[in-house]
Amino acid sequence: MNKIEIGALNFSYPMPTLLVGSKVGGRPNFITVAFCTAVQMKPPVLAISLSKKRYTNAGIKENGTFSVCVPSTDLLGAADYCGIYSGKEVDKSDVFEIFYGKLETAPMIKNCPICIECKLTNVIDILAEDEIFLGDVVETYTEEQYLTNGVPDLLKVKPFILSVRDKRYLSLGENIGTSWEEGKKFK
Amino acid sequence: MNKIEIGALNFSYPMPTLLVGSKVGGRPNFITVAFCTAVQMKPPVLAISLSKKRYTNAGIKENGTFSVCVPSTDLLGAADYCGIYSGKEVDKSDVFEIFYGKLETAPMIKNCPICIECKLTNVIDILAEDEIFLGDVVETYTEEQYLTNGVPDLLKVKPFILSVRDKRYLSLGENIGTSWEEGKKFK
Repeated sequence: MNKIEIGALNFSYPMPTLLVGSKVGGRPNFITVAFCTAVQMKPPVLAISLSKKRYTNAGIKENGTFSVCVPSTDLLGAADYCGIYSGKEVDKSDVFEIFYGKLETAPMIKNCPICIECKLTNVIDILAEDEIFLGDVVETYTEEQYLTNGVPDLLKVKPFILSVRDKRYLSLGENIGTSWEEGKKFK
Repeated sequence: MNKIEIGALNFSYPMPTLLVGSKVGGRPNFITVAFCTAVQMKPPVLAISLSKKRYTNAGIKENGTFSVCVPSTDLLGAADYCGIYSGKEVDKSDVFEIFYGKLETAPMIKNCPICIECKLTNVIDILAEDEIFLGDVVETYTEEQYLTNGVPDLLKVKPFILSVRDKRYLSLGENIGTSWEEGKKFK
């Protein structure tokens, strides 16, 4: 076998590039996040993980809300900006046009095709450097132009992937198969 | 504003298609998983979330190990198969050629470009339907052909994205920017 060991590494799989919105000290702030996943389908629960050093964490805890906004490739520069500079150093409240939804304290980005509003339910503090925030999804905001047959179409949303190890952003390609179908032909 | 509300939904962002390996009742088993994220960079910790009904869960708990294998597009049919059929119904031990690493009980897939071996550290049981497994990454296995400058190159690995709402698999596209650089030009 020609397998080689390259060490204990994360990130060798596709990770999303997302913008997490919160109000910190009363001011809207956004941080770029790749550590995010659904953890339950029904009812829908999202998890994000943030270093305990981040500016965002106190805001999420204070308000009990956060947003997860999906930028499209045309927001790549702004999304990268929000991942380089901390809200401790720069005021990111004017980077995007903002709107609020049902929870009123989770800022969302008008120019993001998808914005997911979450109510914080748990903070899991069992890691050395990071803490995990779980949120119930309360509402999803989008526009007709991003839907196909009533559901978000990622090829219209045009989100992008963070490839951490080689510091690249990758676009999505094309439809290569139907899930829960291809496997039926397999055996 | 032309935003519309489409309800409390997860999945409207790029999600990976991964194969989680475990030994269940002494037999290697693989389940297709999209609910996976890094939750800590250093030391590296991964989280996966699985419905409590899954066959895999008991095996992970019994052995205290699991693997996260990244299939490339040529394994799409097999990966979809492992997401349709439960190990309760079918024996998935012969779907792939298998190897074991340092932990000895986390089966990995020879044909997957990247295999990540994890030691279970926590099971977080605070959700209604799912439970979250945290694992310390112990080792990553790959091959020279998938590396560029010594790090995994996702454009060589060719992983794919699960788009749940419209039941599609999407390929990766191309390099569209340098992370931690594009943002410096932004402001």
